Amino acid sequence: MAKNTITLRILPEENWISVPVGISARDALSTADVVLADYCGGQGLCGKCRVQFLEGAPDPSYADDEFLEKNEIEQGFRLACMARLDNDAAILVPFETRTQPSQVLVKDVEAKPIAADSGFKKIQLKIAPASLENQLSDFDLLRQAVKIENLRADLALLKKLPFLLRESDYSLTLSLCEDDLLDIEAGDTAADVCALGAAIDLGTTTIAGALYHLESGKLLSRAGRLNPQTIHGADIISRIQYASASPKNRKEISALAAAGINEVIRELCAAASVSADAILSITLAGNTTMQHLFLETPADFLPTAPYVPVFKDALNLSAGDAGLQIHQRARLFVFPSIGGFVGGDTVADMLIASLENSAKPSLMIDIGTNGEIVLGAGKRLIATSAAAGPAFEGRNIACGIRAESGAIDSVSIVEKVSVHTIGDAPASGICGSGLLSAISAFRQKGVIDASGRFNTNALPSLKDRFFENEEGLGFMLIRKNEGAQRDIFLTQKDIRQFQLAKGAIAAAVQLLLKEYGIAASALDKIYIAGAFGNFINPEDALIAGLIPAAEKEQIKFIGNAALAGASETLLRTPMRAKALELARRTAFIELAGRPDFQDIFAESMMFGIF
Amino acid sequence: MAKNTITLRILPEENWISVPVGISARDALSTADVVLADYCGGQGLCGKCRVQFLEGAPDPSYADDEFLEKNEIEQGFRLACMARLDNDAAILVPFETRTQPSQVLVKDVEAKPIAADSGFKKIQLKIAPASLENQLSDFDLLRQAVKIENLRADLALLKKLPFLLRESDYSLTLSLCEDDLLDIEAGDTAADVCALGAAIDLGTTTIAGALYHLESGKLLSRAGRLNPQTIHGADIISRIQYASASPKNRKEISALAAAGINEVIRELCAAASVSADAILSITLAGNTTMQHLFLETPADFLPTAPYVPVFKDALNLSAGDAGLQIHQRARLFVFPSIGGFVGGDTVADMLIASLENSAKPSLMIDIGTNGEIVLGAGKRLIATSAAAGPAFEGRNIACGIRAESGAIDSVSIVEKVSVHTIGDAPASGICGSGLLSAISAFRQKGVIDASGRFNTNALPSLKDRFFENEEGLGFMLIRKNEGAQRDIFLTQKDIRQFQLAKGAIAAAVQLLLKEYGIAASALDKIYIAGAFGNFINPEDALIAGLIPAAEKEQIKFIGNAALAGASETLLRTPMRAKALELARRTAFIELAGRPDFQDIFAESMMFGIF
Ligand code: FES
Ligand code: FES
Repeated sequence: MAKNTITLRILPEENWISVPVGISARDALSTADVVLADYCGGQGLCGKCRVQFLEGAPDPSYADDEFLEKNEIEQGFRLACMARLDNDAAILVPFETRTQPSQVLVKDVEAKPIAADSGFKKIQLKIAPASLENQLSDFDLLRQAVKIENLRADLALLKKLPFLLRESDYSLTLSLCEDDLLDIEAGDTAADVCALGAAIDLGTTTIAGALYHLESGKLLSRAGRLNPQTIHGADIISRIQYASASPKNRKEISALAAAGINEVIRELCAAASVSADAILSITLAGNTTMQHLFLETPADFLPTAPYVPVFKDALNLSAGDAGLQIHQRARLFVFPSIGGFVGGDTVADMLIASLENSAKPSLMIDIGTNGEIVLGAGKRLIATSAAAGPAFEGRNIACGIRAESGAIDSVSIVEKVSVHTIGDAPASGICGSGLLSAISAFRQKGVIDASGRFNTNALPSLKDRFFENEEGLGFMLIRKNEGAQRDIFLTQKDIRQFQLAKGAIAAAVQLLLKEYGIAASALDKIYIAGAFGNFINPEDALIAGLIPAAEKEQIKFIGNAALAGASETLLRTPMRAKALELARRTAFIELAGRPDFQDIFAESMMFGIF
Repeated sequence: MAKNTITLRILPEENWISVPVGISARDALSTADVVLADYCGGQGLCGKCRVQFLEGAPDPSYADDEFLEKNEIEQGFRLACMARLDNDAAILVPFETRTQPSQVLVKDVEAKPIAADSGFKKIQLKIAPASLENQLSDFDLLRQAVKIENLRADLALLKKLPFLLRESDYSLTLSLCEDDLLDIEAGDTAADVCALGAAIDLGTTTIAGALYHLESGKLLSRAGRLNPQTIHGADIISRIQYASASPKNRKEISALAAAGINEVIRELCAAASVSADAILSITLAGNTTMQHLFLETPADFLPTAPYVPVFKDALNLSAGDAGLQIHQRARLFVFPSIGGFVGGDTVADMLIASLENSAKPSLMIDIGTNGEIVLGAGKRLIATSAAAGPAFEGRNIACGIRAESGAIDSVSIVEKVSVHTIGDAPASGICGSGLLSAISAFRQKGVIDASGRFNTNALPSLKDRFFENEEGLGFMLIRKNEGAQRDIFLTQKDIRQFQLAKGAIAAAVQLLLKEYGIAASALDKIYIAGAFGNFINPEDALIAGLIPAAEKEQIKFIGNAALAGASETLLRTPMRAKALELARRTAFIELAGRPDFQDIFAESMMFGIF
């Protein structure tokens, strides 16, 4: 008899487990809590889940041939998601293949139930059958029972209705979206499975989601993961280039986004122990490019002037048409955008910041690779975008890493330098908020001057932190022999990278203020949104000159407001019209074409400008 | 070299024609104007297109195996639609396989253009591209150009929009239905192909259609054909039984209706030299069963008390979902019904009769196998149905045939009997209107008495017309040696069949009058609708007691009002709401359960009751 299980030895931890025959190596490892990097969600598309079979390597898959070198395959390397375990095996999981818990921002969604008004509901009905005295059609029975004069159903539901009615003895559960019938089930299922909805923030780097009960507004779970499109480039432009190369590519990059969202949905549902089939509504906010790439609407004309998107208004679509694996009649609401580079995520932020409700102008900044800035009050709202580059995400920085376990996220200097890492793990690099914190500390202690140049004479106690190599001056934050996983430092070039990023944001803020005709001192509030904004210290942002000078109380961190805004539109139907109105009403100000842009940008790279 | 054409010899006419190799025998014969019976439109489903190959018989098709006996196949019989001509052949076309021009009623559609308000249109646009100063999305460009604030488009259109815009140099033609974008084409196509719509009357026996220009309301063509579902029974009940036997059968009978409608659409388009792709809108009226069988909504519970349809309200569907081969985004409006046996065709009739606009109650009768009767005025409208049976269609009558060329459609008796036939062709049988005319003549000359019994002593000159055989008494209308194709006569049983049919209608009328609380003399107008009604003489109907006694001016023939009503909803959107309102407002009166029904029915079979 063939055996039903095999034994798997996991190295280097020497963990021996028993798993069913035929399972994938990725799934087998996950049962032992070894979680692998998997940008594509285990579809053999990203090549990130490399492991090495020391014994019992299966035949290479087509994905192995694509992603691995011939000699690697000979050495037993395989992509774990595509490797089927039919025999006992020993697998070495390299350090770089293991995922570090990532700081994907999902914690900022309002956790308290809010009064929901989603338009979706499930209703249980016990109906009296038609009679000769009361010759109603089957559909009339439903219509009268739910008291919706113009109840609508599609043909597929009408086809199954008569049998469902009679099999269930006229006891049905209806799923409804306003006047539209979304589903009919026999018996009382409303008690088991309520009408669920998901809000999705589709970011360039990460996808975050929150699952709600659509009737009570109760938050059921949150989840986040990397956007699998990352395999085709970390930035927007390389993804657009890839997608625009052929209809096949456009389809692929759309499918990757859908796969990522579906994976987030699976996680949301697993955490809440519910089925994805119960999800009747999804709202999605992303930047204009992400929304285009996901929906397969060509982003070809976005990168070049006049930066034309296919659509800016909100879209109400079938979730299934967009590749989402939830209830077959689920609805998808896609956020309206303001322009090619101020997208649905900014509009979602705006629903949270509510600038239109304040009497004095306020400023909202979403800090990221692309910074979005909105300024205004009441009926006058203006917006622009600033290409900050990847420094805030820890990229293009010598020791930069993503905000993950082991990343330095804050730096302080008294006499000596001390660092703090995410998860208090041994330092493995520095992330965006650590960079900002370091710059702030450097400025306070004179380690850099107003132009950003290192001053090696600042503090005597820091003398030995400076070093010089072929690339120029550098400053050591923590050495390998001080408990870090390796030497971690900042170079003069890193400081310049930061200055380019903060200069872009600060210049955009100044130009918007100029356009609006007010001084920074006239601002009421400064809202800081976005994943990066959430992890920074407001004082650091002020000192580094990222935001205009302000009292601490004026600065409001609204965290991952895009997800919160998406949740608002999920749970409260009127917010959808409000989002569209805000998007249409906010004027996009194009900075690139302005004659004063270059001067103000150069000036904004300096410190002490605000 | 292989030859490209073959020679076909058609028998018995000895017509020799040359046709392309590979053509079907059906298509080849049609080039010689030999038109075959084809209930299924040439799909090998009905078995009606039997021909006999005397030479060059092709291999039998799977359809031949299904419909023909083994010895027939050996004798060269084949179904013409499935027989491919690869070699010279000689084909004998039996008389019974040839179609007689059928009197399908399509002539009564209002031929003059009416003011259209269909909601559909095509618009040609020359758009200014977006610029840095005017950063609109591609979709915004359209939205502003057509001045529709909430213009909606599906994802597929958004996907192709950016390329179409740029390839066409921003010159597009849009197809619209209210705020919905149905299509985008490059360049100016509105001039060539206007927005078209089709109205369909889906009858149990025949399908009739009319094609219109949706903007001007101009009638382009009309067409009609047999309902291919006829292969599963001429009557409603046998079709429901067939459809209810399995989901496969239900699908098949739905596909047959769709095939029939598609064939009518092809004829409509061929006659107007347009493409079916230009049809953006279809409205369809049929009896409740026909609408159910076409849409594949189970009719299983219609035949038995309490006679429950799946739906009664109007449906707005995607035409493609219902299997119609027209524009992929075309809309289908299906008429609302009043009850299981008073369907959308009656509601369409009501749009033409406009009972609700008259001050005094009027009566509307649609005479057919199932008679529908509506009575009322203003806000009070009541309706019922009467199972008249097939006598009015010439079935179950000894010499009865459909209303086709050669059918006796009127009979007059002065001293002698004289008959008139459709198309003035040699008489081959008697159709429903001929039967009514004969009964009227018999009553006037005393050939039958008030109970319907033959009186052989009525007129001396008619003495030799009577004959007796094992089935009882009969009356000879015309003999083979008097120029007919065969002896054509009516039997005592035929008279009884007619009495059953007219009794059902007359009883229903009387019971409705009783329910409404008025006498027949209080009626304002009597509207007669339906194919049968169109060919009868009002005096015959009065004399035979089919309708209440009335002045000739009170009787209005509204012809194929179902097709005219469907055309109204096609061309004037507000008529759709009106149809729904009339359907919901009209009370269905169930006669079967009434204690007085049997008495009134028995009485109504007599002559002279009104
Ligand atoms: S997870 Fe294996 S290739 Fe992406
Ligand atoms: S036309 Fe040939 S089988 Fe129907």
